[in-house]
Amino acid sequence: MDAASLKIALDTVWVLFTAFLVFFMNLGFAMVESGLCRAKNAVNILAKNFIVFAISTAAYWILGFGLMYGDGNALIGLKGLLFASGADNSPATGDAYTGVYSALSWTGVPFWAKFFFQLVFCGTAATIVSGAVAERIKFGSFLVFSIAICAVIYPVTGHWIWGGGWLASHGFFDFAGSTVVHSVGGWCALAGILLLGPRIGKYKADGKAKPIYGHNLALATLGVFVLWFGWFGFNPGSTMAANPDAIAHIAMTTNLAAAMAVLSATGMSWILQKKPDLTMILNGCLAGLVAITAPCAFVSVGASAVIGLIAGVLVVLAVFFFDKLKIDDPVGALSVHLANGVFGTLAVGLFANKTVAAKIGTDSEALSNGLFVDGTWTQLGVQALGVVSVAAYVLVAAFAIWGIIKVVMGLRVKKEEELAGLDIGEHGIEAYSGFQIFSNM
Amino acid sequence: MDAASLKIALDTVWVLFTAFLVFFMNLGFAMVESGLCRAKNAVNILAKNFIVFAISTAAYWILGFGLMYGDGNALIGLKGLLFASGADNSPATGDAYTGVYSALSWTGVPFWAKFFFQLVFCGTAATIVSGAVAERIKFGSFLVFSIAICAVIYPVTGHWIWGGGWLASHGFFDFAGSTVVHSVGGWCALAGILLLGPRIGKYKADGKAKPIYGHNLALATLGVFVLWFGWFGFNPGSTMAANPDAIAHIAMTTNLAAAMAVLSATGMSWILQKKPDLTMILNGCLAGLVAITAPCAFVSVGASAVIGLIAGVLVVLAVFFFDKLKIDDPVGALSVHLANGVFGTLAVGLFANKTVAAKIGTDSEALSNGLFVDGTWTQLGVQALGVVSVAAYVLVAAFAIWGIIKVVMGLRVKKEEELAGLDIGEHGIEAYSGFQIFSNM
Amino acid sequence: MDAASLKIALDTVWVLFTAFLVFFMNLGFAMVESGLCRAKNAVNILAKNFIVFAISTAAYWILGFGLMYGDGNALIGLKGLLFASGADNSPATGDAYTGVYSALSWTGVPFWAKFFFQLVFCGTAATIVSGAVAERIKFGSFLVFSIAICAVIYPVTGHWIWGGGWLASHGFFDFAGSTVVHSVGGWCALAGILLLGPRIGKYKADGKAKPIYGHNLALATLGVFVLWFGWFGFNPGSTMAANPDAIAHIAMTTNLAAAMAVLSATGMSWILQKKPDLTMILNGCLAGLVAITAPCAFVSVGASAVIGLIAGVLVVLAVFFFDKLKIDDPVGALSVHLANGVFGTLAVGLFANKTVAAKIGTDSEALSNGLFVDGTWTQLGVQALGVVSVAAYVLVAAFAIWGIIKVVMGLRVKKEEELAGLDIGEHGIEAYSGFQIFSNM
Repeated sequence: MDAASLKIALDTVWVLFTAFLVFFMNLGFAMVESGLCRAKNAVNILAKNFIVFAISTAAYWILGFGLMYGDGNALIGLKGLLFASGADNSPATGDAYTGVYSALSWTGVPFWAKFFFQLVFCGTAATIVSGAVAERIKFGSFLVFSIAICAVIYPVTGHWIWGGGWLASHGFFDFAGSTVVHSVGGWCALAGILLLGPRIGKYKADGKAKPIYGHNLALATLGVFVLWFGWFGFNPGSTMAANPDAIAHIAMTTNLAAAMAVLSATGMSWILQKKPDLTMILNGCLAGLVAITAPCAFVSVGASAVIGLIAGVLVVLAVFFFDKLKIDDPVGALSVHLANGVFGTLAVGLFANKTVAAKIGTDSEALSNGLFVDGTWTQLGVQALGVVSVAAYVLVAAFAIWGIIKVVMGLRVKKEEELAGLDIGEHGIEAYSGFQIFSNM
Repeated sequence: MDAASLKIALDTVWVLFTAFLVFFMNLGFAMVESGLCRAKNAVNILAKNFIVFAISTAAYWILGFGLMYGDGNALIGLKGLLFASGADNSPATGDAYTGVYSALSWTGVPFWAKFFFQLVFCGTAATIVSGAVAERIKFGSFLVFSIAICAVIYPVTGHWIWGGGWLASHGFFDFAGSTVVHSVGGWCALAGILLLGPRIGKYKADGKAKPIYGHNLALATLGVFVLWFGWFGFNPGSTMAANPDAIAHIAMTTNLAAAMAVLSATGMSWILQKKPDLTMILNGCLAGLVAITAPCAFVSVGASAVIGLIAGVLVVLAVFFFDKLKIDDPVGALSVHLANGVFGTLAVGLFANKTVAAKIGTDSEALSNGLFVDGTWTQLGVQALGVVSVAAYVLVAAFAIWGIIKVVMGLRVKKEEELAGLDIGEHGIEAYSGFQIFSNM
Repeated sequence: MDAASLKIALDTVWVLFTAFLVFFMNLGFAMVESGLCRAKNAVNILAKNFIVFAISTAAYWILGFGLMYGDGNALIGLKGLLFASGADNSPATGDAYTGVYSALSWTGVPFWAKFFFQLVFCGTAATIVSGAVAERIKFGSFLVFSIAICAVIYPVTGHWIWGGGWLASHGFFDFAGSTVVHSVGGWCALAGILLLGPRIGKYKADGKAKPIYGHNLALATLGVFVLWFGWFGFNPGSTMAANPDAIAHIAMTTNLAAAMAVLSATGMSWILQKKPDLTMILNGCLAGLVAITAPCAFVSVGASAVIGLIAGVLVVLAVFFFDKLKIDDPVGALSVHLANGVFGTLAVGLFANKTVAAKIGTDSEALSNGLFVDGTWTQLGVQALGVVSVAAYVLVAAFAIWGIIKVVMGLRVKKEEELAGLDIGEHGIEAYSGFQIFSNM
């Protein structure tokens, strides 16, 4: 076996290993989201978060992947659309590549490794929505929206940014998906929340928010640990090759941002709430991870610490902000994925450092130094353009699809079902048979 | 370091990495099985599923591995029987190999990597039994049976199929163990259930089954996610080498079958039970994974989707079928591992595609195209022969061993202990101290 | 790409992969420790075990790593102290290495991969303390101690043993950290326990210990499975290179010791407590893992089985021993990490086998055969010297730091808070909202 073949084999091992870690994040989301909701809705959330990856697999295979990575125009992919079945001679790369998915021709692994790695990212975007609309959405309605996000909404912006579309051409950078994955999921969640309205009893007559406590913080903590673990696939894996300098650096920036966000969120919670609230600590971690996702490969280790510190503050403020607006997000998905997805995307424009990127092999001619590195606004401008255009498109698309679902099949369960819990109403089964639970909590 | 040494190192990393994932499936089984049983028996199930891998390690090291992979005759291994201590110059392969475990000489990794990878598969077969006999079996009796399955029952059929025995010679193919692991575990479980009888109160006087609900569906969901994750070790790892085309393809077929089975099981449950039952969704996933285990390396991506769709339907029907026969299987182990282990094994005979296998490097002269690929029955016939002969041997062996245990030490706890729960009776400790639980549930 | 570059890439993949597994052990500790405590303190333990890795990351980055691995004298590192920012041309090795962290110049991976791998080990030492001081310590006081252990206590002994300090020079061997990580964590825990005193109600007037049951043995079991899984990163990863013979051998010895310890602990518990106690089975596993950590790369497979068997017996006896002394350790951290950390360290002196080590490439001129291998006491003497000197230093340092914290901010929560639970007192939130729980349990 020659060195070239060995490199393909090693890169494939790396891509699959990290893809498995990202797949595992589905467990993390399921545990965080069910743990932060009430026991009477646990089965429903678990069922949603479990089935959503199956739906992602089917929808992304049947259509989404082709739309995202098929050769096409600046807006969508047009070749090899269905069943990821276009011509492709991977693991050939560069000029040796012949096929219709040329936006992925830079990574030298077999086609199904590419597909699978991209699939687990699509699945993440879809699962983000679940927590935000929890405790009141109809099971069937959620499933239909999940098909739409995986088959259409996510792949289109994905094409713009990672599939050779117009934002890629403009020099927009999002290394592992602060925008592609997290803020897309966040905007879809926001649209859903606005059409669904808050849970019964969440906002009192005087406008104050009533805390609705999660039923199992051990599960929620478990979930965040799993997500932190999975993020070591998400970010370092997005190299799609075992480039030692890059993957070591990205593991470091990813972890440091998460750790610093935990500390700053804990501090903010201690100051604002008088006691360090575990749910804030946990969401702080996720905030740091989301924020470092776009810039992880372009910024220095020191910058990643600063990004994390900011993210941890931001997520705590965002939780209070959304509650002030009566936007009822049971698990804080908007504060984590939307607010920090946007911040992380902009952070590329603030902290990108071409010296660092060159050293670890992630530099590109199209990348400019960030505002805080050499005082130029170029990169920040492009990043802001990306944030705004993705927001506009995804909000329109998500409102349209949620709206159609609302008209055709309804979005929200009946009041009695919401009060009694969706577990019995939607699934005919309880999560904790035999335990004494106060279902009016 | 030369390329040949690097290949050995890379293959070893792959084999160990995937073996660790398969090891981790023990957690998955422990959580699924305890979650689907009642709180009063949770400690007992956890203890069984925890200790069973320790027993597997000891029993497979002391005897099982030699019996399975030692050079011998068509039925059992005879050389290097005890303590896996026969001569072996791994990682030498092919003609360069000298040693007594020549059935594994095709994979170029150090001996203990081979052993460890095989060990975690043995452990899986043993842990399957635990759920099926749960909530009524004596702890000690289960331990003794576990020794027997790991030291003798599993290694013998393993020798037939993977150890160079008679089924291997006849061209029987089971890539990652639908038969070797899952249906062997399933037949052992069936024998145990038949000798134990149903749990008190499961079948009413009029013959109808009374649902006995699991006490923690969050744990059950967690468990299935862990198993899905672990299966990316189970199937792609069974290459025992980092062959990029093969491992990427197998990751794809494995995941697609699981996803499709989730969707079809959800649909079947929705139709038959009026509401989508989470336990059916979860078992659907496992069914798809078990069914694709044998054919994952021999079938097209499209075929894997079909196999998954069938598996999801099959598992739901099997659950009702076994209940009709009053075969009380608390966690659905028979429907998952036995029914779909058999189906998956036959699926090789239905869908095997030599063009696909040749492309990814898993083809063999002895493999024929499946019935649905070129209309020939050859492969299906051999697969059926394997299913029947394994069933006959394992049922006889398992009945004999369970029978001896029943006579010598008894199989079932006392009625009062079963009603009060095995946690106090067998272990003197409760799973959820401080929680109000209705133990008659 | 040439073979040398490929080796760097492969080693980096291995180091990162195993580091991720060790990171994941934080989840294991969080679940074991919260599961073995009472529901009313679950949020507090989860918060401690979650935030402790964030603190470790910050403290080890800012100071700890430099103190441990910076070039310096026999006692501490002196160069490149702050922010791990000294000169370093990794992945260059041997004579090609130029930089200030020469104690790590033997491993050919990029600098941040080295740092991250070392960081997750530091995090483990810190998290061990959490369980031992649980259910009575102030949250803030624990955080301050965590900073001290990661920034100073752990790095100093780490420098002695792994950073080129005086114990390394004397031929002391601790492959993956029975002493460096586990007994250091254990001595810190012991000092904390002695200054804190037992939980209210733990020891009755007549001196007998009252059992205080854990609130969730499913979580505890989950945690130990995760730790067992993570240990496949801890021990095999400590090669910091993908050396096939070494990593396969170490995976085997690690697993076999764990399995044997499970079996011997189960037996001891069955004999002494009349019924096999799940918590003893679980702690048996951890004991075997801790004990094999130092010798895993230097002993035969057979010796690893013996080490495991002894560890399982030792942990059960240690639990009773510490209770006899009224040293109240809610989760058995001392019995696991201290007793078996010491035993594992001495086991190198008993079982080290230069023939085995030479075969797998872990031998060193400074290593002598163990007492049971060729009857010489040399290695055992050095190991004992290491145990005693680490004990002396860590106990003094830990008592000093715990003592200062006690004077300045207090160690223990108020009596009313301890009785009502630390979740409300320290965090203002319950772990299981909606569940009926008896908080006086």
